[in-house]
Amino acid sequence: MKIADQMMRFRVTDGQGFRLAEHDTAETCGLDKDHAQSLLADGVKRLAELQEKLYAQDRWSVLAIFQAMDAAGKDGAIKHVMSGINPQGCQVFSFKAPSEKELDHDFMWRTTQCLPERGRIGIFNRSYYEEVLVVRVHPELLARQKLPRELVTERIWSERFEDIRAFERYLARNGTIILKFFLHLSKEEQRRRFLERLEEPAKRWKFSLGDVEERKRWDAYMAAYEDMIRHTATPQAPWWVVPADKKWFARLAVAAALVDALAKRDLRFPKVTGPALADLEKARKRLEAEAPRRKRS
Amino acid sequence: MKIADQMMRFRVTDGQGFRLAEHDTAETCGLDKDHAQSLLADGVKRLAELQEKLYAQDRWSVLAIFQAMDAAGKDGAIKHVMSGINPQGCQVFSFKAPSEKELDHDFMWRTTQCLPERGRIGIFNRSYYEEVLVVRVHPELLARQKLPRELVTERIWSERFEDIRAFERYLARNGTIILKFFLHLSKEEQRRRFLERLEEPAKRWKFSLGDVEERKRWDAYMAAYEDMIRHTATPQAPWWVVPADKKWFARLAVAAALVDALAKRDLRFPKVTGPALADLEKARKRLEAEAPRRKRS
Repeated sequence: MKIADQMMRFRVTDGQGFRLAEHDTAETCGLDKDHAQSLLADGVKRLAELQEKLYAQDRWSVLAIFQAMDAAGKDGAIKHVMSGINPQGCQVFSFKAPSEKELDHDFMWRTTQCLPERGRIGIFNRSYYEEVLVVRVHPELLARQKLPRELVTERIWSERFEDIRAFERYLARNGTIILKFFLHLSKEEQRRRFLERLEEPAKRWKFSLGDVEERKRWDAYMAAYEDMIRHTATPQAPWWVVPADKKWFARLAVAAALVDALAKRDLRFPKVTGPALADLEKARKRLEAEAPRRKRS
Repeated sequence: MKIADQMMRFRVTDGQGFRLAEHDTAETCGLDKDHAQSLLADGVKRLAELQEKLYAQDRWSVLAIFQAMDAAGKDGAIKHVMSGINPQGCQVFSFKAPSEKELDHDFMWRTTQCLPERGRIGIFNRSYYEEVLVVRVHPELLARQKLPRELVTERIWSERFEDIRAFERYLARNGTIILKFFLHLSKEEQRRRFLERLEEPAKRWKFSLGDVEERKRWDAYMAAYEDMIRHTATPQAPWWVVPADKKWFARLAVAAALVDALAKRDLRFPKVTGPALADLEKARKRLEAEAPRRKRS
């Protein structure tokens, strides 16, 4: 069975009955690190080729959303999968706590402005999904959102899921290829990575005591992730539940998912035909008629 | 003499008396292609390291502007120098003909919104400098800009130069490291590359008859570039006049310039001290006190 096919098991296109507990955070599809890294290098190369055509064709755009607990490897996955892609065709946006100005708008406003143009790959490092994750786990954040009181009912989460589904359906209909990655990390592996961060000067600055505080709410977060995937995994905007205990495996899975999504589309360099082709001929004749100024090798 | 030092001759920090004719488009500093490519690979690696620190420190930002005639290799330089950089810390913006909405604003409005945040490298593929290049060569474009008539005088170009200088001085004072690259191509080499583009399906779609039309205005463009460099090359925002007839050399020169600009700053990972350090200790103790859920290798 091809690796690419094996990766398909992580894709959730219908959230009904989805159970996070059925997904192993340490899965590696029988690969070892060296093999996975060589496959990743191939995948990145293939992705770079597909991206050239995506850009030239200028019809589709790609939105890749990353959500995960702290230290699950979002930054690393983005770095290792997307480095090597022409940066002209790829933009990464990280969304932190919303500003006062952003809170004065609807919850998808700030991310909407960062959506990728046609021909581009847009990466969201966190996204509007924070609105059904951290905001759900911390009710005080919802209170800060200045919503009219009568609109905040017990239905708010199912309403948000519905709004997100409708929004993503709309994007898909307008040519956006959507992939959503949940990097699925075990609590114990997060502990190990946090301790590692505390040791290394190059990582230490990333750490805050708040990160450890959030661990107390681990189960609430897992419940929120599960509910999110149940309600927002659709054929046009699937969730990829990526086993993230091994960074090298998570990166390979992300690359494979992106290659799969792009390879399925008929991406190609635009063909020049008709009057445009006649123009090219005219251009060639004009250029050939110019006397070269000097010889060059 | 070190290569990096040799590259310094392309940097113009004082435009007074600058003459484009004194700059050879085919210069290669005695390097051959293989040697240059291996130096480029080193440069890109070094740049990636510096960028990590730039991002972590979150104080400086970098603005790299690319201007050149068509086919001078802007896209290729951006691709080959910036691929390999973490895309999370690097954003590329291409500026084409301004929209109606953009023309309803001052000429730097649209680019200002795309300036890099602290910690990021922002690449402008074309920029507000188009306003003293294509707009200068094509007076009909200036007429479209809807400026109040009494503000369009014979002083308009020197006013624009002054405004740009003042704006870049302001950015530099606010922590933006500015590098401006003029990829200096010969007219004959452009002809050769155009003919090549006409042959290759993967490049053909990029071509338009307008590109050949613009060649008729070559001398007017060169005069505009020269005047631009004379009036806007400053110590805080130098122009790099990069010989561009050999793509491999131009890419190396761009990488060397970026490495030079970043290496000069005291970029470093933030040091955790004081109360933050006590917090880290607290976090470590808490994490170590947790019983691991299961053993892992």
